Amino acid sequence: MITKEILQKRRKVLQHLQGADIILLPANMNSPMNCRDNCYPFVQDATFQYYFGMNHPNLVGIIDVKEKKDYIFGKDFSMDDIIWMGKIKFLKEEAEELGLEFRDLGELTDFLKDRRVSITNYYRADTIFYIAKLLEKDPYTLEKDASEELISKIIEQRNHKTEEELEELEKAVNVTREMHLEAMRVVRAGMKEYEVVAALEAVAAKHECYLSFPTIFSKNGQVLHNHRHDNILQEGDLVILDAGAKLSSGYCGDMTSTFPVSKKYSDRQKKIYNIVIRMFEKAEQLCRPGITYREVHLEVCKVMVEELKELGLFHGEVENIVIAGAHALFMPHGLGHMLGLDVHDMENFGEEKVGYAEFSKSKQFGLASLRLGRELEEGFVYTIEPGIYFIPELFELWRKEKKFEEFLNYDAIAKYMDFGGIRYEGDFVITKDGCRRLGKKMLKYPQEIEEYMENRGNG
Amino acid sequence: MITKEILQKRRKVLQHLQGADIILLPANMNSPMNCRDNCYPFVQDATFQYYFGMNHPNLVGIIDVKEKKDYIFGKDFSMDDIIWMGKIKFLKEEAEELGLEFRDLGELTDFLKDRRVSITNYYRADTIFYIAKLLEKDPYTLEKDASEELISKIIEQRNHKTEEELEELEKAVNVTREMHLEAMRVVRAGMKEYEVVAALEAVAAKHECYLSFPTIFSKNGQVLHNHRHDNILQEGDLVILDAGAKLSSGYCGDMTSTFPVSKKYSDRQKKIYNIVIRMFEKAEQLCRPGITYREVHLEVCKVMVEELKELGLFHGEVENIVIAGAHALFMPHGLGHMLGLDVHDMENFGEEKVGYAEFSKSKQFGLASLRLGRELEEGFVYTIEPGIYFIPELFELWRKEKKFEEFLNYDAIAKYMDFGGIRYEGDFVITKDGCRRLGKKMLKYPQEIEEYMENRGNG
Repeated sequence: MITKEILQKRRKVLQHLQGADIILLPANMNSPMNCRDNCYPFVQDATFQYYFGMNHPNLVGIIDVKEKKDYIFGKDFSMDDIIWMGKIKFLKEEAEELGLEFRDLGELTDFLKDRRVSITNYYRADTIFYIAKLLEKDPYTLEKDASEELISKIIEQRNHKTEEELEELEKAVNVTREMHLEAMRVVRAGMKEYEVVAALEAVAAKHECYLSFPTIFSKNGQVLHNHRHDNILQEGDLVILDAGAKLSSGYCGDMTSTFPVSKKYSDRQKKIYNIVIRMFEKAEQLCRPGITYREVHLEVCKVMVEELKELGLFHGEVENIVIAGAHALFMPHGLGHMLGLDVHDMENFGEEKVGYAEFSKSKQFGLASLRLGRELEEGFVYTIEPGIYFIPELFELWRKEKKFEEFLNYDAIAKYMDFGGIRYEGDFVITKDGCRRLGKKMLKYPQEIEEYMENRGNG
Repeated sequence: MITKEILQKRRKVLQHLQGADIILLPANMNSPMNCRDNCYPFVQDATFQYYFGMNHPNLVGIIDVKEKKDYIFGKDFSMDDIIWMGKIKFLKEEAEELGLEFRDLGELTDFLKDRRVSITNYYRADTIFYIAKLLEKDPYTLEKDASEELISKIIEQRNHKTEEELEELEKAVNVTREMHLEAMRVVRAGMKEYEVVAALEAVAAKHECYLSFPTIFSKNGQVLHNHRHDNILQEGDLVILDAGAKLSSGYCGDMTSTFPVSKKYSDRQKKIYNIVIRMFEKAEQLCRPGITYREVHLEVCKVMVEELKELGLFHGEVENIVIAGAHALFMPHGLGHMLGLDVHDMENFGEEKVGYAEFSKSKQFGLASLRLGRELEEGFVYTIEPGIYFIPELFELWRKEKKFEEFLNYDAIAKYMDFGGIRYEGDFVITKDGCRRLGKKMLKYPQEIEEYMENRGNG
């Protein structure tokens, strides 16, 4: 539970900001689908939720650094709202219970007059519009007014998860785990992919959760961000599921499984699957405070190259292959990312600010997609998600360009072009001297998954 | 199926616009949840979908009235997109299949140079931003540049549904119907409301549909727009379900049912339920080309007043009660709204432009919430959704104000304050000489619903 005291403690940290007078942190507004009255399910701005804990749209949170006082500005509910929305706690009441002084939104312009206002950057156009108008700035260039000091202070604070946050994250991961088990339970040859998606997303809804991100579920696992689900599943297919639950407190789970429609992995599938698990366990072994995630990523890639070399897909020195980036043919994405109140936590501030801090991201194909590269610290929550994919389009392109011919055995690789892809993902926290996977024990090895699917019943 | 020929025919109508040179109709962009890379499921702009049929973000549709030619401007997919999104049809190819010339988005500014551009108004801030920049206008006042002629032409055209549109709407209503039947099948005392919601929304997903709007499902039926689902259902509770499916072609279903958690309506519940059904059937009887929906609404309210008078809740002349608006204590909302590619079809252009046209909306409490008031015409698709609610907060307010004491028997009404509310809704099309309900036959009478629930099994 995120209590009043926790929220006050969080805000206190920002009150020590150098050179700030007023810190302004807006809530999200509702996002319209096809007109302003018909909106998507409301998702709160994560930073607002972190410091102010309220889950309503159209609020502005204020931390008055000079006066050492915190405010919420908003339009409180009226009789009309009660008729349409039912008995609701008034915003003023909720704000005061959270240690915040409530003021009418109409007073905000006056309140801000002659004060120096620190803001962050925004990812929603309606927020930019509103804040630019409020501060009399040009909406098209508002981003340059964002306070780098404020942003880095927020990132620093939110990157280190507290006990209470870990509790919420465990809950999100456990619902996420149940979504994955449900998919393994219902999947059958002959089903359309979206029927399985419907079943697993219902598990999130049944726990009053939203989704951390649009579900990826596909027999074409080599397609990394596949949001279409219109294939018919067939015996022998391997399916990748990447999905997670977002609690009403905002915290997110994120998990990937790869399992066989026919309940049994083929020998070839099991071989590649086991390599992915070895990569996963290598990362688990290495993660601890002080190591950079970039190093973990590269070590994991070396495991992949060693193993695929055994299968005859590579030749040459493992070290050289990874330095050159030839392995990215099989894993063009990064090993993981920060996780918290958003699935790619705080990337709204800029991916590199969160995941790289002082040093900068590589531009090499593959490494350029590594969202987290910095030194790991106690309390970081992040994903480990190695994968191996056989992407015909990328393969054909590289082969035509004769790219990395000194390392890649194109003829041997060609035989896998009907394979698809495999990914396995879990959520971790960096501890004092290592890392710990969040949530209840999840199925990982082929025999565990096969056994679960064998005993799943007909329900 | 909405074919190339249908889309071309639709666009041809706009090519006859007086005084237009270029008509610019943008697609929607993706709506970010917590950062620009993590977005809500994409929902296309309905007008763009109507004229151009493409279901991708970040496109601009152009109808060149002068040159009699239609274009799509967009950024086509790259090798990178194929690696992340799989083998996809190129936008150029899809556009050409739909009779559209494809151009790179970068060429749009030059293309529009020295042309007179007609635009509509927008409901999403990111669209306003983009279009204002493109046309070198102030985003805060862009709305005043919207062409009234263009908007009313679009409304006129989209308000009259064609055979092919009715086919799509039937499909949407049939999926919607299955969602409602599923809710009646799974509901049990002891469940949380959101568990039922999860089950019925899974039916939409299983048919590859999104939701027309966030589901309303509540034992507190008197709360008109209740999007919270955290109550535990109990024996004797009556639940209102208002939910619908949106097809990938964009067309929406919208339906309301009210059913008993314990499979049987109590006598009192049945009494009020049957009045709502009589109101529904009265509307069905009256709807035909030439009558205004405002008149239908008022006639339906008279049925309610007559029946509630029988129960002792009113005294005085029915006619006078309805003219005064005293009945709105029990039905503060309108009888229905237009339905199509959006659940409140085209309300993005302004509710009155769609639902009222020439005459204007009443400001009286109750009637002010009637979204559709105009004369009905053949081809209009709309909802009929009468309801009776006992809203304690509204009741207390009116009683304190002694409002309509000449009509309302407050002491008798007080006894219903634990009742909740009932609504019943179906989707209709205006035919040559009447109206027709869309979709397969749906349960309506108490005995039908009780029988269905009795025989639903344990599955």
